[in-house]
Amino acid sequence: MSVVVRSKPSLRERFVDVRDFSDRITRSLSPEDCMVQSTEDASPIRWHLAHTTWFFETFVLKQDPTYQEFHPEFAYLFNSYYNAVGKQFPRPQRGTISRPGLDGIRDYRAYVDQQMMTRMESAEFLGNHSHTIEVGLNHEQQHQELILTDIKHALSANPMLPIYEDSVFDDRDSASGNWDRFDSGQYEIGHRTSEFCFDNEEPRHTVYLPEFSIAADLVTCGQFINFIEDGGYRRPELWLSLGWNAVNDDDWASPLYWVCQDGQWMQFTLAGLVPVNRDWPVCHVSYFEADAYARWAGCRLPTEFEWEFAGNSAASVEADSSESIENHGQFADRLFRDDLAIHPTRSSSGMAGAVWQWTSSSYQAYPGYRPPDGAIGEYNGKFMCNQYVLRGGSVATSSSHYRNTYRNFFPANARWQFSGLRLAR
Amino acid sequence: MSVVVRSKPSLRERFVDVRDFSDRITRSLSPEDCMVQSTEDASPIRWHLAHTTWFFETFVLKQDPTYQEFHPEFAYLFNSYYNAVGKQFPRPQRGTISRPGLDGIRDYRAYVDQQMMTRMESAEFLGNHSHTIEVGLNHEQQHQELILTDIKHALSANPMLPIYEDSVFDDRDSASGNWDRFDSGQYEIGHRTSEFCFDNEEPRHTVYLPEFSIAADLVTCGQFINFIEDGGYRRPELWLSLGWNAVNDDDWASPLYWVCQDGQWMQFTLAGLVPVNRDWPVCHVSYFEADAYARWAGCRLPTEFEWEFAGNSAASVEADSSESIENHGQFADRLFRDDLAIHPTRSSSGMAGAVWQWTSSSYQAYPGYRPPDGAIGEYNGKFMCNQYVLRGGSVATSSSHYRNTYRNFFPANARWQFSGLRLAR
Amino acid sequence: MSVVVRSKPSLRERFVDVRDFSDRITRSLSPEDCMVQSTEDASPIRWHLAHTTWFFETFVLKQDPTYQEFHPEFAYLFNSYYNAVGKQFPRPQRGTISRPGLDGIRDYRAYVDQQMMTRMESAEFLGNHSHTIEVGLNHEQQHQELILTDIKHALSANPMLPIYEDSVFDDRDSASGNWDRFDSGQYEIGHRTSEFCFDNEEPRHTVYLPEFSIAADLVTCGQFINFIEDGGYRRPELWLSLGWNAVNDDDWASPLYWVCQDGQWMQFTLAGLVPVNRDWPVCHVSYFEADAYARWAGCRLPTEFEWEFAGNSAASVEADSSESIENHGQFADRLFRDDLAIHPTRSSSGMAGAVWQWTSSSYQAYPGYRPPDGAIGEYNGKFMCNQYVLRGGSVATSSSHYRNTYRNFFPANARWQFSGLRLAR
Amino acid sequence: MSVVVRSKPSLRERFVDVRDFSDRITRSLSPEDCMVQSTEDASPIRWHLAHTTWFFETFVLKQDPTYQEFHPEFAYLFNSYYNAVGKQFPRPQRGTISRPGLDGIRDYRAYVDQQMMTRMESAEFLGNHSHTIEVGLNHEQQHQELILTDIKHALSANPMLPIYEDSVFDDRDSASGNWDRFDSGQYEIGHRTSEFCFDNEEPRHTVYLPEFSIAADLVTCGQFINFIEDGGYRRPELWLSLGWNAVNDDDWASPLYWVCQDGQWMQFTLAGLVPVNRDWPVCHVSYFEADAYARWAGCRLPTEFEWEFAGNSAASVEADSSESIENHGQFADRLFRDDLAIHPTRSSSGMAGAVWQWTSSSYQAYPGYRPPDGAIGEYNGKFMCNQYVLRGGSVATSSSHYRNTYRNFFPANARWQFSGLRLAR
Repeated sequence: MSVVVRSKPSLRERFVDVRDFSDRITRSLSPEDCMVQSTEDASPIRWHLAHTTWFFETFVLKQDPTYQEFHPEFAYLFNSYYNAVGKQFPRPQRGTISRPGLDGIRDYRAYVDQQMMTRMESAEFLGNHSHTIEVGLNHEQQHQELILTDIKHALSANPMLPIYEDSVFDDRDSASGNWDRFDSGQYEIGHRTSEFCFDNEEPRHTVYLPEFSIAADLVTCGQFINFIEDGGYRRPELWLSLGWNAVNDDDWASPLYWVCQDGQWMQFTLAGLVPVNRDWPVCHVSYFEADAYARWAGCRLPTEFEWEFAGNSAASVEADSSESIENHGQFADRLFRDDLAIHPTRSSSGMAGAVWQWTSSSYQAYPGYRPPDGAIGEYNGKFMCNQYVLRGGSVATSSSHYRNTYRNFFPANARWQFSGLRLAR
Repeated sequence: MSVVVRSKPSLRERFVDVRDFSDRITRSLSPEDCMVQSTEDASPIRWHLAHTTWFFETFVLKQDPTYQEFHPEFAYLFNSYYNAVGKQFPRPQRGTISRPGLDGIRDYRAYVDQQMMTRMESAEFLGNHSHTIEVGLNHEQQHQELILTDIKHALSANPMLPIYEDSVFDDRDSASGNWDRFDSGQYEIGHRTSEFCFDNEEPRHTVYLPEFSIAADLVTCGQFINFIEDGGYRRPELWLSLGWNAVNDDDWASPLYWVCQDGQWMQFTLAGLVPVNRDWPVCHVSYFEADAYARWAGCRLPTEFEWEFAGNSAASVEADSSESIENHGQFADRLFRDDLAIHPTRSSSGMAGAVWQWTSSSYQAYPGYRPPDGAIGEYNGKFMCNQYVLRGGSVATSSSHYRNTYRNFFPANARWQFSGLRLAR
Repeated sequence: MSVVVRSKPSLRERFVDVRDFSDRITRSLSPEDCMVQSTEDASPIRWHLAHTTWFFETFVLKQDPTYQEFHPEFAYLFNSYYNAVGKQFPRPQRGTISRPGLDGIRDYRAYVDQQMMTRMESAEFLGNHSHTIEVGLNHEQQHQELILTDIKHALSANPMLPIYEDSVFDDRDSASGNWDRFDSGQYEIGHRTSEFCFDNEEPRHTVYLPEFSIAADLVTCGQFINFIEDGGYRRPELWLSLGWNAVNDDDWASPLYWVCQDGQWMQFTLAGLVPVNRDWPVCHVSYFEADAYARWAGCRLPTEFEWEFAGNSAASVEADSSESIENHGQFADRLFRDDLAIHPTRSSSGMAGAVWQWTSSSYQAYPGYRPPDGAIGEYNGKFMCNQYVLRGGSVATSSSHYRNTYRNFFPANARWQFSGLRLAR
Repeated sequence: MSVVVRSKPSLRERFVDVRDFSDRITRSLSPEDCMVQSTEDASPIRWHLAHTTWFFETFVLKQDPTYQEFHPEFAYLFNSYYNAVGKQFPRPQRGTISRPGLDGIRDYRAYVDQQMMTRMESAEFLGNHSHTIEVGLNHEQQHQELILTDIKHALSANPMLPIYEDSVFDDRDSASGNWDRFDSGQYEIGHRTSEFCFDNEEPRHTVYLPEFSIAADLVTCGQFINFIEDGGYRRPELWLSLGWNAVNDDDWASPLYWVCQDGQWMQFTLAGLVPVNRDWPVCHVSYFEADAYARWAGCRLPTEFEWEFAGNSAASVEADSSESIENHGQFADRLFRDDLAIHPTRSSSGMAGAVWQWTSSSYQAYPGYRPPDGAIGEYNGKFMCNQYVLRGGSVATSSSHYRNTYRNFFPANARWQFSGLRLAR
């Protein structure tokens, strides 16, 4: 990847870029594709497009008494989980709403965009709302990743295994097998710059870490096949108790989207069904599978603090060599380029950017954490129960969205995200 | 309705008419509308359009070894419940399939139509397949009714209560309050002419009926409101035990699609939310509600044999006055006219054509019944358990589809059909 | 069985006999045995003992204002489903109530028995209550059969397969293979004498029956093994659609309580695990299995009217030979003898007394049926939906309880009763 | 409580004491009481008595090839969750097993006790097995607490609200309202002595804690009533998202076992229904309720590390004043006295011994944790997912079982334990 020198975009430029990117990644989808809700965890694409728009309408535009809302029912239809702004249409039934259709939702987007763009010319407006707008853009980037994971799940439910976007994968990679060792000591964890971050990345605080080592490479598909062939999914002693229940209740015998055809492991990707490449990082595994693999390998998952400290060190090495963070890893550099990475193929290119990596850390508040007042305070804090932290970003994460302190989180049985693992010991 | 004199259409003409009518009634629907599966009982409209096409492809065209199938996966995707022709895609997940989209399904329909039309020019082909084609057309007419009931349910799930088709309802009606009395005796029941009928209408056989009376009018919304206001939904002594469970488990307090707004009963129709008209026949009630109403009224539901015998008598009176059956009741005369009746408004216009009427009869085989050999034998016989017979056709039934011996059947808790009741004693 | 000549017992004598028999059949059970509720369909034995007592207390004793109730909570705890007399403790949780214990329930029985016996010395009391007492005794006899079926199910859930009562089975039998043919015509169906019957056996009424034949023998275990070995449980074309769902959802591959050990079919009985005897009547099959077997055999199940008419004919033949009905079949003659038949071993000894026989008839009201007023009216009528009629009584039915017009009924998937089948054609 | 001076008991003496105590606390229960499984979380008392015996038989006695097992099926019937020693009878069906009955289980206990007592005379045997026996005794003490919590739940399901043991509660208490402040710094956490501990309390390791304060008193019923009266159960902003789901799905409006009668809060205890005493510690709250209360109070739950460090400090103060740990708090001193505390009444008597206290800490492995090899390794480690740590012991915990480093753990929605909370900030 070449180095691009550019000045920092304005908020208005970022607004255009982020909003356009939602269009970019849904351009190839039909109205029917955008209706599917193939699991309660996922949402229809049309809902993502509307909900991200609802966010700006609700938290920015409606603060202005002169604003005319687009449709009175949308406040209810497209609210996800914000109790403070009213009731929510039941999540499992999102796939039963056909109107507004995709065209109607694009009209809604255009209307809200135009209202936002006009107002963003005013410095006073920016002064009042720039933080909320920044949250809204980061929120939309999160939903852009969900759009990719949700449409992947939706298409996989179709026995014809449709293709989202044709792609030729770059297969070259060579794992080093190295481990990076870190001394015990007190370390500072959490966000520290004046740049945007989510509330759950703060406050910056001290932790004590014992000595640890972390693998330089992600666990690969080939390594995971060894686990499978060694009976990994049939040996209860390798699993957490709830994980063993999941294996048996849901008949897990491989990562999500893998099928074995005539002795060859194949996997469904957004480019259709392709052979599993042993060098690629394993992806679409749950916390339970990541944990079982680590136990089988005689290692463990890193804590999120170990991961962050190791990630900081890696970034600082890279910073020394004068490259910007965005050009590392496999992040799609979404804001300024048009190509879309749709499957992780590099297991050895740094800490971040290929797959989200399960850590052993339960998702909890940092000491002194307080969520913001009001409805925005429902963004992160209320989910701090029975979820585990993932670090590192994925091919489906925008590079302008990611930071080393970023905390993603999902329940231990979730597999439809681009989630893999890196070992620690 | 005026009397139309016409000659009997050929099978090929009927094929065109019936297939076109499926297009006619789905013309106003968006691709998104055609995706919704709002309950497991219902199917997405796109699935109905594909499945009725699959029927001709599977049972007619594929008998011809020169036929090229449209797509190899469709045999699986669009099979409803025919075990003899292979596995079926799981019914509850029909709403998760976005491809082929609506356009792709219209292509599928056009291809099969063209293949059928060409072949139907051959007398030999007609000789071999005319009965199966006739079944296929009647099958498609059944699905046309389901298209209307399923899209009604789908739209009702949307809090914006979208309109399928604007309509001005004809409200004039005057119920007679009459009862028709019939003597006890042996009667012949079941189909007798050489015209098409389903296997479950045969063999014609003798039953003994005690003396009975049957109401000349359907139970009206106004009468049903009296039942509600008399505590009908809160008095267990009026209900079958399973019905009382349904009332409590599903919080039934009125027919499906009714809501009480500021003391006024409103009902959702395919033309949107309209006030309940007390003169209209009550509709969208389950067997349980029909049975409870009848008990409250000091009456009972008729048996299907009583209904058929009374229907025969009415038809013979009408036949004497030289009008064809199609012009009675409120049947949409679908094949030759373009207007579509979308809600029942007449409670006093004869036995048939407004709403399907629950009978007290469990759906069972007539004495000597044998289903046809092969997959077509799965059409009716295997459903003869825990369902109840409805008679009379509805506004959503094509008049060319209906006969007096016709046996419709649904489980006792089904309410999304155009189902009402007529009392007996 | 020898012929016993005796005068008809008084109601008071019958009360003692029936109440004692409940003790007789629970004598070998531990307090722990009497706690088990191994399926929602079944109830703990202690509950049966209490509920049958509650019946007399509620419907007879509490009519007397001088009666002192035994415990104020029992009205709620031991009400089964009578809405008219108050709320009911939830059925699925009957197994969680440990107090009163078995001793406390025996005290309750003794108290109510003593109160009843004293009052039954009064002719006026008998005049007012004899019908209700008769219902209560028949009710208790029904629960005596349930006590046997429920404890069988309870013990079968224990991997140690405990024995209820040791028994040596009489294995001699020889099926005739005969069919009895009956002409078509109008027949009278339903109860006709002044003896006790349940409301659902009335009114006596006329039906028309086409010519039919009915098998002289019950279907045997050997015949059913042939069905199994011919793939009976794997061939969807033999099954009703709901039956095929049950086969797959519940993994049915044989009658309930059968297991195949080293190629030998074994069955759990109240005397423990014994080999399946090919000459015994097959037992513990559902309506679905009975129907599938009949279809496989090229026959059908009889209607309940065919069964009753054939039963009447058989009884009249037997009556001519001067034996009382009680001495036919395999009924345990429970009132006057102490031996207990606990498994059906005769497939060829008449219409009644070995196993309940599924008929093809949905359980519905006879023409003109009206349930009694008041809570007793909830006894039969409200269950007339989604159940099928069984005829014939079983080894677990008291002979003094059974009549040829008796209509037993269970849902189509029920298998824990002593239920088998007889073919018709 | 008076100070008792005694020498440390031998393992054999402890064995007698602990085994006897299981008899002591089940002495008042009937065979029927010991059958109840009122929720899947709980087990029948007879199962607890058998399973704790199974533990010694499986992990100690069966290591001796000369040992004759008591019954071959018990290995399966009474295994809880140890995959390494074989399959387990399904947990939700434990309540359906009536044999062996309570007498049979007492025979099983006597047999195993006798076998153990004989062998424990051998120094070699003790040398080989003393650690496992120690685990077994601690295991039985855990089940003794479960016996009390499970029988409480079982009796509460009975509308007659039976009494386990009559008791007069000591109501005197006076909360100080004090907070104890601790400086930030590195602290050592985890077990350090040569005494017994569970594997999850090790290894001892360093953590960094920011400055914190912890309340000297437990949250009282009176304080919790203030929360309720301030709408605590109706305000989503106070709850974790999963907690808010639980409130609505399970209709939580107060702690478990509380009912409001005529404006007076009552609570079901093992001594029956008694008024809620405002000075008692609140009990039977879930993690969700503890967390919501803390948020409402403007505080938070302590981490388990804060709790342990504060507990250590308190213990050291107490140690200075020459009292043994057992005499603090409200621990029933079970081994040597016969009185049984069955409800927590002191909110101000130290860190431990009244109610288990929810901490904010997810239950996870300490750095460097490795479970033991073999089946015993399934004891703790495999449950380290979606559970939260409770500290402090309860009135139902034996004092000889408890340590300051003890980590109890339950899912966030569990309420049937003696669980309350202490605030931090």
